[in-house]
Amino acid sequence: MREFEVWAPNAKQLELQLGHRPVPLECGERGYWHVAVDSAQPGDDYGYIIDGQKPAIPDPRSAYQPNGVNGLSRLVDHSAFPWTDRNWQAPPLTGAIVYELHIGTFTPEGTFDSTIARLDYLRDLGITHVEIMPVNEFPGKRGWGYDGVDLYAPHHAYGGPDALKRLVDACHAKGLAVLLDVVYNHLGPSGNYLSRFGPYFNENYHTPWGAAVNLDGEWSTEVRRFFCDNALMWFRDYHFDGLRLDAVHAFLDRSAIHFLEQLAIEVSALASETERQLVLIAESDLNQPLVVIARDAHGYGIDAQWSDDFHHALHSVLTGEHGGYYCDFGSLAQLAKSLKSVFVYDGIYSEHRRRNHGRPVIGLAGTRFLGFLQNHDQIGNRATGERTSHLLTVGQLKIAAALVLLGPFVPMLFQGEEFAASSPFQYFTDHEDPDVGRAVTEGRRREFSSFGWDPESVPDPQSDATYERSKLNWDETGKEPHRSILDWHRALILLRRAHSDLTNGDLNAVDVQFDEQQQWLSLRRGAFTIACNFNGSPLTREIAAGQRLMLSSDPECAVHGIALHLPGHSVAILS
Amino acid sequence: MREFEVWAPNAKQLELQLGHRPVPLECGERGYWHVAVDSAQPGDDYGYIIDGQKPAIPDPRSAYQPNGVNGLSRLVDHSAFPWTDRNWQAPPLTGAIVYELHIGTFTPEGTFDSTIARLDYLRDLGITHVEIMPVNEFPGKRGWGYDGVDLYAPHHAYGGPDALKRLVDACHAKGLAVLLDVVYNHLGPSGNYLSRFGPYFNENYHTPWGAAVNLDGEWSTEVRRFFCDNALMWFRDYHFDGLRLDAVHAFLDRSAIHFLEQLAIEVSALASETERQLVLIAESDLNQPLVVIARDAHGYGIDAQWSDDFHHALHSVLTGEHGGYYCDFGSLAQLAKSLKSVFVYDGIYSEHRRRNHGRPVIGLAGTRFLGFLQNHDQIGNRATGERTSHLLTVGQLKIAAALVLLGPFVPMLFQGEEFAASSPFQYFTDHEDPDVGRAVTEGRRREFSSFGWDPESVPDPQSDATYERSKLNWDETGKEPHRSILDWHRALILLRRAHSDLTNGDLNAVDVQFDEQQQWLSLRRGAFTIACNFNGSPLTREIAAGQRLMLSSDPECAVHGIALHLPGHSVAILS
Repeated sequence: MREFEVWAPNAKQLELQLGHRPVPLECGERGYWHVAVDSAQPGDDYGYIIDGQKPAIPDPRSAYQPNGVNGLSRLVDHSAFPWTDRNWQAPPLTGAIVYELHIGTFTPEGTFDSTIARLDYLRDLGITHVEIMPVNEFPGKRGWGYDGVDLYAPHHAYGGPDALKRLVDACHAKGLAVLLDVVYNHLGPSGNYLSRFGPYFNENYHTPWGAAVNLDGEWSTEVRRFFCDNALMWFRDYHFDGLRLDAVHAFLDRSAIHFLEQLAIEVSALASETERQLVLIAESDLNQPLVVIARDAHGYGIDAQWSDDFHHALHSVLTGEHGGYYCDFGSLAQLAKSLKSVFVYDGIYSEHRRRNHGRPVIGLAGTRFLGFLQNHDQIGNRATGERTSHLLTVGQLKIAAALVLLGPFVPMLFQGEEFAASSPFQYFTDHEDPDVGRAVTEGRRREFSSFGWDPESVPDPQSDATYERSKLNWDETGKEPHRSILDWHRALILLRRAHSDLTNGDLNAVDVQFDEQQQWLSLRRGAFTIACNFNGSPLTREIAAGQRLMLSSDPECAVHGIALHLPGHSVAILS
Repeated sequence: MREFEVWAPNAKQLELQLGHRPVPLECGERGYWHVAVDSAQPGDDYGYIIDGQKPAIPDPRSAYQPNGVNGLSRLVDHSAFPWTDRNWQAPPLTGAIVYELHIGTFTPEGTFDSTIARLDYLRDLGITHVEIMPVNEFPGKRGWGYDGVDLYAPHHAYGGPDALKRLVDACHAKGLAVLLDVVYNHLGPSGNYLSRFGPYFNENYHTPWGAAVNLDGEWSTEVRRFFCDNALMWFRDYHFDGLRLDAVHAFLDRSAIHFLEQLAIEVSALASETERQLVLIAESDLNQPLVVIARDAHGYGIDAQWSDDFHHALHSVLTGEHGGYYCDFGSLAQLAKSLKSVFVYDGIYSEHRRRNHGRPVIGLAGTRFLGFLQNHDQIGNRATGERTSHLLTVGQLKIAAALVLLGPFVPMLFQGEEFAASSPFQYFTDHEDPDVGRAVTEGRRREFSSFGWDPESVPDPQSDATYERSKLNWDETGKEPHRSILDWHRALILLRRAHSDLTNGDLNAVDVQFDEQQQWLSLRRGAFTIACNFNGSPLTREIAAGQRLMLSSDPECAVHGIALHLPGHSVAILS
């Protein structure tokens, strides 16, 4: 017997399409409809018919969409999977090295199962946490995942529910924690049937993706349950160790208990109940420390948030780019401020935003923030998806890696960054709705031609070639310069993981010195000093007596007494 | 010489219309335009011409609109007023008795100056803080003030800037603090020229009044300045002691520093600088304690907020009304919860809102909240503006007064409540734009006919008679039953002000016992017990030995040993 439940507060009639005959559901409290069907079995396909409108549409909480976003839902028995991770305990996030990957392009086959073969590589690299870009069902076979619509259903093209469980189980067997990227701020433009079921969206608030998710209007308690239950499901039924919450700045919520706080409360209750380490990481454009301040101090209690200001400061110093939001960055002073104080924009005026932005971080550890040189957005939102390795010298890449991997934040790498992969990470989609597909292709070309790009040189997101081009080429890891860059990353990760001075995140123990003119910056973290020469020309600096060279990006880096010699674009780690 | 400054970031050309010739302004940083005019004098009328579009429109920061919302602005010299309140120190809000009044209907003449004659009465009643409904320029001569558009200009029909200063100065001379109601969440439907000057509104967010004020989008720093500077002006140039912030739940602000927090920071800086007690009181429908939590605990740091749940609980218990939002109330248990815990809806499900609402108040004093039986909205938003005195027995009114005036919250009365004024407080307007006027009249009739009212019985807001009918009749204060109700209020206020047990707001010292069946409720506050019989029939209750009757609403209230006798609809105060 199987109990079917679906929320549809405004429906007058609701039927379950399962097998040949529609089965009527009964409406209970607060708009939840129920029916128990004796004959229902895992593997059966079903859908719902609202107010007699055929064909049946997928269950908003569908666990599997084997035929895509417009197909029927398939019953899954989550209790049947033979988990082998009984003794698994995730390592703490504070000591983590996070690795963001995209299932479709991480391996040539692009599936959950093919990913398993690469886990040894990640473990040997020193990764502790794998962060998987969104995997819930999105339109078509290729996509970043931010157009997802069936929030509870692992994508069929990646292998579906069982394959995802195999991947998580395998990660745990290798000692790797697994984080999943989830998108609760909007749904994709096609295959989204939620509004047929209920007021999931609030027309009073608009975001770049349309009406905002209904987090504080009538019926928002049930809408919030939909998202919170989703989070709990990934932890319970898929054994994920954490979630990365996409773009939390797009939540519009005036409730006395913010949606993020509710999520943190419920996840932390589950963690206590199951004695697991479960973490929440927010992508936030708000420069709002409250996101990661503890709940007993009236914060939302999220474990960590991405630190975009550090990224922007580092990227613009290295590349000299000043377009778009990089117009707010570009100086070593800002890079230094981000390393010491997290937010460069901590209440000051941002030219890009045309308003004051952010507030200071006070009394929080650096490990409440993730630091990175790259991520899917920073690469893929460029017209041709160039990685930093396409823009910088090997020396510059090594400086960046040292600041990311030895900096005060939890470091995050984007797949292939560690070996300066030559493949780009371009924006790709596979919209089956031809109107949406055309709109995406044209929208992207229009967007970049407004920045002066030849529209023809902007890859077509809908083209399979754009997707194929974005896959990693693993053969590169054995070739120069990829191999030595990979070695550099390995060495830095080893160093970080071996010394608590580098993982404790104590921002009081961070000291940054720099010279804007000479273009050097020196980051002290406890006993360690990371000395960077951003200039293309060599320089010699005085250092404290007794400091010795632990690691350097260039064989010409040298210490003679109290003189440190740094060739152009180099970095030395002293202790 | 006079320096003119106006913010118009999108204007290409800006001219000052002053006298015969337009004077061009020059655009400086962040969209602020400037010009200095030697000949400009206080009393001169002026306006601005944007991009050559005539006629000139009023200054958004106009200090005076002698000819209404569509007329020219008049220059005012705020430094010229002969203030006499040099030694004034406002009493603390924690010990306050607040009195909400509306300038147009408080006295027959309805002006700032005519109000002065009634201040002795308020002082003798025991009032400490007068709260004046919005006085900034709104369309026409009559109105509640929530349709205001010129935020910096005291209404011409009330007497304009100098008369308002005379009123505040006179209040201070009588020992009365003065609070002003300000509306920062929307502007009225006519005479609002702000959007011609700049992006004051954010089309991404909609409120019941249209696009929300732009508090977090591009240019919001300057928009926030417009409102914060307005608050500071009322404190600086008009010597107000506090502001009541209308409907703060309508602020949509995702900034890292919430607009309310910024306001609190700036007002508190001014208070320190000038060594004055300046307070901010919020009307909030959020049941969000953060509004009044201190800033160092990550709250917004507003001094106090209105406690609607207490009002709703009290009103519905007394009247038996269950329509609209009263459907969420009606039990003594809820009234008891509101007295002990402030919010009845502290995270639980509200049928009216169709969602969970609020969060618990923890560790805050009751004096962070204002408690009231009535206010302009609760009376005036009824179809015919009936006061509680039109709905309840004298005994019930006295119970309500005892709970308001001896309860844990800062008590607030609405003009005339203290003598059970027979005049209603109806919704009145005087829109000069005939389309807006018609829309208001018809909208109101439509609204109430949807609740079953005969449209003809709903007073026409645009009619002068509706306004006249709403004026207080002061002759009543000498007649019964008004006089004895007034005496009752005076006695309760005297009692409250004489005993710190009643003003300390310590919610831990509050104990409430009740019996839903017998309809009695007993509120203990330190040494005092307020014993209420909500039932129409008499009852006898056991009390602790040694308690004596301090005050009672009915001569038949009596204590015999440990027996307290309460006739129907009565209240006794024991100590």
